[in-house]
Amino acid sequence: VLGSAATIAELTERELIARIHARLPRPPACLIVGIGDDGAVVEAERNRLQVLTVDALVDGVHFDTSFTPPDAIGHRALAVNLSDIAAMGAEPRLALVSLALPVALSCDAFDGIVSGLTALAARERVSIAGGNITRTPGPLTVDITVIGTVKRRQVLTRSGARPGDVLYVSGAIGAAGAGLAMLRAGDSRESSCVERYLFPNPRIRVGLLLGRNRAASACIDLSDGLAEAAHQLAEASNVGLTIEAESVPIDAATRSWFSTRGADALNAAAAAGDDYELLFTVRPRLRGRLAAAVRHSQIPLTRIGVCTSGPDVVVRREIDGRAVDAPFPRGFAHFR
Amino acid sequence: VLGSAATIAELTERELIARIHARLPRPPACLIVGIGDDGAVVEAERNRLQVLTVDALVDGVHFDTSFTPPDAIGHRALAVNLSDIAAMGAEPRLALVSLALPVALSCDAFDGIVSGLTALAARERVSIAGGNITRTPGPLTVDITVIGTVKRRQVLTRSGARPGDVLYVSGAIGAAGAGLAMLRAGDSRESSCVERYLFPNPRIRVGLLLGRNRAASACIDLSDGLAEAAHQLAEASNVGLTIEAESVPIDAATRSWFSTRGADALNAAAAAGDDYELLFTVRPRLRGRLAAAVRHSQIPLTRIGVCTSGPDVVVRREIDGRAVDAPFPRGFAHFR
Repeated sequence: VLGSAATIAELTERELIARIHARLPRPPACLIVGIGDDGAVVEAERNRLQVLTVDALVDGVHFDTSFTPPDAIGHRALAVNLSDIAAMGAEPRLALVSLALPVALSCDAFDGIVSGLTALAARERVSIAGGNITRTPGPLTVDITVIGTVKRRQVLTRSGARPGDVLYVSGAIGAAGAGLAMLRAGDSRESSCVERYLFPNPRIRVGLLLGRNRAASACIDLSDGLAEAAHQLAEASNVGLTIEAESVPIDAATRSWFSTRGADALNAAAAAGDDYELLFTVRPRLRGRLAAAVRHSQIPLTRIGVCTSGPDVVVRREIDGRAVDAPFPRGFAHFR
Repeated sequence: VLGSAATIAELTERELIARIHARLPRPPACLIVGIGDDGAVVEAERNRLQVLTVDALVDGVHFDTSFTPPDAIGHRALAVNLSDIAAMGAEPRLALVSLALPVALSCDAFDGIVSGLTALAARERVSIAGGNITRTPGPLTVDITVIGTVKRRQVLTRSGARPGDVLYVSGAIGAAGAGLAMLRAGDSRESSCVERYLFPNPRIRVGLLLGRNRAASACIDLSDGLAEAAHQLAEASNVGLTIEAESVPIDAATRSWFSTRGADALNAAAAAGDDYELLFTVRPRLRGRLAAAVRHSQIPLTRIGVCTSGPDVVVRREIDGRAVDAPFPRGFAHFR
């Protein structure tokens, strides 16, 4: 990324913006003033609420340029935000992209980041309405704001779960964490895990189906891992959670990577960040609504536990035929 | 800022968010889900377009912690965005705050940054709807997204000027640039200039009056200085500009600081960034509309030139009774 080839130091901010602009499709009709003015002007969708989210990826904290290709940096920076929009049951519409770039960044890396970003934006029909580019004496930082829209009665939050609600997770967990560990170890044979780490697929469709069918009582994404998300959902909803260890979906490649290294696969997978699955709860009597979401989501939705009167978040294992509950350790905490 | 006192390394991200939350007023009714979920949920204003802008301040690029107090960092990071909203004729409503923080940042500095930001937000009735906090191995970076609203027919853009339109600037230019030079020189006696640099006042009211009265044909803010703004407005509108040197408002303290150092006060003031005044154009036959804006703006609005069929942006000086035009040198370019 910090190559010896032509660097962006030779370009002006407006030339960099022009390189981004060139990769964007025709703006939608709702974008009345696009890139190039003091601000973007957009027409809000009628009868929809807006969901706003912002997330930054910092080189050396959220990715490592030594093993993350530029297009994956761009893809991930947008994907983490789309995942937040998905967790609210909303449809992503617009993005603002703020880049802080070291002047030694190569033009090829810049173009790669932009192409990863614009490819995912095009695929999910998100318009890049504007942004900002500045140099930084520090690490490459990609900060993206996404605006989505949702009908009022379809908003999903973290706080609606009640004791007795059933806990579900989309897809499988831990693959991205295993992929990151593989990349760090220089071992990327298990390409499905590496791919999951580099190019996560935010679960936009799952979130939309859960919102539209009003199937979920609470929802959160797994950006900091299952364990952290479980604690946050429990706190926000003021419930406890009992998670059944055997039910948590961990794919074979992930399980085998962790197990052969002597780690407990569930603990390792639950502590790993970078999974962009959704964790959600369903009222038992509304399970029928979930069936429709399951049918159309194309992603498995797995029952992994139940909400309790709380407040503990525990994982239940069968040991010698007896159910044994242990605290579910929290994940990632940024500043400790 | 990077003090020996208690640092944020001891705190978690949620504790930092709680320190911000504690300084915020009660959220407005339009904020349906605020800080603490995957995204904020807001109700868009009816019959208004939205204006979106994002801008980042990076330590060592846009400010210097050695002479910029924490509350000024927070104030300026929001002010630069409010200035962009003002330049579009819009009213700022919501902000998302994304902070990338070195772990050695002191808790006092963190609180100071937050208090500068929240004080300006409260004064301008902007709600902080959400944000993100991450650590960075690099410089303190404050990235803010602001959403404003404006009626469709009141949007101001850079691109509406025509030959013959008259060019105006709000307030006076160069004071912030002089203030920055004073701080760098360790000479801060001229406190009005230093104050202008540290705590700029975005011209929200001026922008709103220009939009509401439909007085301006084009508008841009002076974040990168008068010279750069003049070129950008001219390019976007496909006109030239003739700026009358004697008309450009430069206050006495600014003029004297530059002059006693042997600099041409106009060139120095026009090249200096960090002025958050507005540069705008008015159709000659619509000058009456401007009168109402002048009456209510409380800030002087000064005629400084005229739009030509272009494309040159020149400054006209009277030399020995003759008008002499010289190119107006461009300002700030980020990556060269």
